[in-house]
Amino acid sequence: MRDILILTEADLRGLVSLDLEAVDVVERAFGALASGRVVMPPILSMELADAHGEVDVKTAYIPGFAGFAIKVSPGFFDNPRLGLPSLNGLMILFSAKTGLVEALLLDNGYLTDVRTAAAGAVAARHLAPAGVRTAGIIGTGVQARLQAEAAHLVRPFQEVLVWGRDAAKAAQCAADLGDALGISARVEADPAALVAASQLVVTTTPAREPVVRADWLHPGLHITAMGSDQAGKQEIDSGAFARLDRYVPDRLSQCRLLGELRGAIAAGVVSAGAEFAELGGVVGDRALGRSGDDQITLADLTGTGAQDTAIATFAVDLARRRGAGTVIQA
Amino acid sequence: MRDILILTEADLRGLVSLDLEAVDVVERAFGALASGRVVMPPILSMELADAHGEVDVKTAYIPGFAGFAIKVSPGFFDNPRLGLPSLNGLMILFSAKTGLVEALLLDNGYLTDVRTAAAGAVAARHLAPAGVRTAGIIGTGVQARLQAEAAHLVRPFQEVLVWGRDAAKAAQCAADLGDALGISARVEADPAALVAASQLVVTTTPAREPVVRADWLHPGLHITAMGSDQAGKQEIDSGAFARLDRYVPDRLSQCRLLGELRGAIAAGVVSAGAEFAELGGVVGDRALGRSGDDQITLADLTGTGAQDTAIATFAVDLARRRGAGTVIQA
Repeated sequence: MRDILILTEADLRGLVSLDLEAVDVVERAFGALASGRVVMPPILSMELADAHGEVDVKTAYIPGFAGFAIKVSPGFFDNPRLGLPSLNGLMILFSAKTGLVEALLLDNGYLTDVRTAAAGAVAARHLAPAGVRTAGIIGTGVQARLQAEAAHLVRPFQEVLVWGRDAAKAAQCAADLGDALGISARVEADPAALVAASQLVVTTTPAREPVVRADWLHPGLHITAMGSDQAGKQEIDSGAFARLDRYVPDRLSQCRLLGELRGAIAAGVVSAGAEFAELGGVVGDRALGRSGDDQITLADLTGTGAQDTAIATFAVDLARRRGAGTVIQA
Repeated sequence: MRDILILTEADLRGLVSLDLEAVDVVERAFGALASGRVVMPPILSMELADAHGEVDVKTAYIPGFAGFAIKVSPGFFDNPRLGLPSLNGLMILFSAKTGLVEALLLDNGYLTDVRTAAAGAVAARHLAPAGVRTAGIIGTGVQARLQAEAAHLVRPFQEVLVWGRDAAKAAQCAADLGDALGISARVEADPAALVAASQLVVTTTPAREPVVRADWLHPGLHITAMGSDQAGKQEIDSGAFARLDRYVPDRLSQCRLLGELRGAIAAGVVSAGAEFAELGGVVGDRALGRSGDDQITLADLTGTGAQDTAIATFAVDLARRRGAGTVIQA
């Protein structure tokens, strides 16, 4: 009989916030990932066509972390008709020494939201210009809000602009961000104007046609594109790659298949074998990041199992210190 | 907030036994698997070399089953030095309609033991000669015992012979089987003599060199080989394939990579593209199975996610009917 810690979404929301501590934990995972010491197998993916559903399983082992997480993310796209969320999921934390189950994190995707936004903060910290006055957010979902909050932790901009295809949703998102960040926040109906006014842009859409055109890019701009996580999605016009001073993937091998890089390779703008320093490499070596305020940079975030292992380990450490959650004997 | 059912190993041992009901559930999964309607992605596998560990994740969706299971199986081979088991693991059952987590089955590998043995019973039911007087078990571990018990459910033999490399373990296994089955049970020190005396042989070893030679095969013999679950393992001499009337894989594509078939293809005894009816096909069509008491048959069991989904769904149905387990709100 051993103790297994069970943490519900409510427990986890009480323990883990999108703050600099969470950003640092995720940054450490990227550092390990780029060092080549992380073991991260390809994603297991299963489609349930009858139910209009899919399920993905991700994992990664990071030397130096006491545990490794396995994350299961189902997406069932008819759920809203049943009054249920499309996305949910859980993580399981195992001891990296014995393989025994340490904790079940029934987060319904909350930890994924946090670790995804935290990756945006890591990208902004190392790639955005030092002085960001205005941030532009393209997209109006949960990540639109969280990415803005995450970026604000490392670049405390004074203004945020929001663009979305649905004007009402964009207005709500801008209102929420104004409240959350206590800064000027408004809808910008023209995405070109949004990019022109911003030093930092985050794209958080499920777009399959580019929403940012190459000729909108300007000196002193950093873009974090985090919507593409499947072949077929694309947020940034491939022509943009010819204008970048730095292109930084979270995981190069994965971005070739799933990220903005995939589209650029398909369009012939980037060669399939082109090498780029990963985000974790930029974290560890400033010379690989932005080297001038006038540069144009793009971070391509597709999501990694290393982030899941990092955030799950962090959450369980906090829970143990604070006596949170439910322990069962199994 | 939703209810999630948590079942510990103790709960599951109280609910699920290796009996004809479990065999029938697993047989139904094989039937669906062979029908081509099952979705079963390749296994996700991660090695943790620092810790001498590995972890596998399997899943399958079977139309007609209300849920699908994801099984996580860690194997950490230094654990015995720490007084811990090498193998453990858990299953998670999701609704096949909504993808929501229904139950966590903290079985430490118990359900895998049962579904693996049940597959042996399915093979024996459809491939062993009608009259089995003596069964031979090669191997002395947990599956040696369970495979004998499973086969006895469908072919109530009067005698069981056990061979193992370690004579003391073989003696203990034989004693345990005599007690469990209430029949004559003894060690046979010569594996050739064991095969000669048996109408049904089960091999349950982690052998990397064949333990059953081709010239030991005799008319009226069925062999179930269930030890090979990785490239590199092999229990049956590849020459045996030339003598078989029926070769039946649990999953053809997987047996080409992991099973006895892999060795036979490598040895040039079987062509890489050779087609064979799967176990589920034999279940559904008697003409594909044994058609005479003098035939020689081999079932090659590598383990499938379909079995996991079947046994997990079965266990959760039983638990709900009997009010077993712990419900948490998450």
